[in-house]
Amino acid sequence: MENVAVVLSAVRNPLNIGAAARAMANFGFADLRLVNAYRVATEEARSAPNAGPVLDASRDFASIAEATADATLIIGTTSATKRDVRLEVKSLADAAPLLQGQAKIALLFGSEKFGLSNEEMTHCHWLLRIPTATQVPSMNLGQAVAVTLYELIRQPLPQQEPSTHKVAPAGLLDELTSRMHEALTISGYVHTESVEDKLRRLIRRMDLRESDAITWLGIFRQILWKLKREPEAGSNDRSANSE
Amino acid sequence: MENVAVVLSAVRNPLNIGAAARAMANFGFADLRLVNAYRVATEEARSAPNAGPVLDASRDFASIAEATADATLIIGTTSATKRDVRLEVKSLADAAPLLQGQAKIALLFGSEKFGLSNEEMTHCHWLLRIPTATQVPSMNLGQAVAVTLYELIRQPLPQQEPSTHKVAPAGLLDELTSRMHEALTISGYVHTESVEDKLRRLIRRMDLRESDAITWLGIFRQILWKLKREPEAGSNDRSANSE
Repeated sequence: MENVAVVLSAVRNPLNIGAAARAMANFGFADLRLVNAYRVATEEARSAPNAGPVLDASRDFASIAEATADATLIIGTTSATKRDVRLEVKSLADAAPLLQGQAKIALLFGSEKFGLSNEEMTHCHWLLRIPTATQVPSMNLGQAVAVTLYELIRQPLPQQEPSTHKVAPAGLLDELTSRMHEALTISGYVHTESVEDKLRRLIRRMDLRESDAITWLGIFRQILWKLKREPEAGSNDRSANSE
Repeated sequence: MENVAVVLSAVRNPLNIGAAARAMANFGFADLRLVNAYRVATEEARSAPNAGPVLDASRDFASIAEATADATLIIGTTSATKRDVRLEVKSLADAAPLLQGQAKIALLFGSEKFGLSNEEMTHCHWLLRIPTATQVPSMNLGQAVAVTLYELIRQPLPQQEPSTHKVAPAGLLDELTSRMHEALTISGYVHTESVEDKLRRLIRRMDLRESDAITWLGIFRQILWKLKREPEAGSNDRSANSE
């Protein structure tokens, strides 16, 4: 529970923020992060019983990337049927064991009106689907948070051996994505706005351990260093670190 | 899902009624029953998205006994720790298989302020506990309904052989309780107001099949018939049915 953060993106209704905070308190979660929230809505959310301490400790972020920078696993939640076929969708009932061994998990909930956008989903490693009826798939946000958190604490999990390698946090992956994007832009690879989204998904799917992500980042930094130099025949500069 | 009714007792907040109805629609439940509700609150509850059809089909009742008369199993829900030690409390995670083979299950939710009263709990066969934190046990009503219904549809259950005997519906048990109470009152057994509650719990614990409940009812009708006759030495009236 300590390693799970609930991230609400572009949520506008104070009742929903309060309900999410209350469900977190009910089920023993404490790390609430608000992306693009109005502080006034957060203040009004205090009228929800028992929501106070979680709201007091909540933090504001300007983007999903910032809110999830320390997360080693980012999971989007959706009650709708699969929208983005490029992201794996897992059943909520199967979720709990998949979270084991992660240093920090971010559970991402989208706005009450539209859910997670396709751009927001690109930050996710996979999606969690709440099994709602196909005729009435869309849940109230506070209820979706409650059902999801309930599933995570529903049964005690068997202890698992800690992993021998550290998983790469999302902030590192985002930096790698940016450098790749920059390198490809300079290289003339990028023709559409959506390439950064594609890259983010591509990198999420790699399930990189931290040390490998650092290696990849070094590779793209090096490429970028090379790309940004004026073309000069016969140059023997070979390392970004030598500058 | 067709054999589960959600019964809200003394719920006052239209937002909660709407949220309960929406969660029912999300998870495929349709039978909503309101005890001691204000119709105006139910009308206001329509502002909850997707709550309309469930609210349209909802029914009002003046008492829990009336609202659950056709139920073969009545389950109280509580997020608090066990209050009434005379009622068995089961974990929500274990609930789904226990509902199999019942003709009609009533899931009872108490008011948003106080939960189920001890009197309301006497109508229940057992209680279902949502595993909330002991420091913050009390859930928002709409979230409690969502979490409970989610658990019931969480996993498909293995098919079970239908029971060979019909379970007694609560209306029949209530009639038996009333006749027993009347008989004991006339007999001078009753000294306190809480005896009817005790009887109701006693009868719920018997897990009566319908045919046995009818037999018990016949026994108490007969006793009552006898008790209500003026004392008359040597009377040879022996059957209530002969009147």
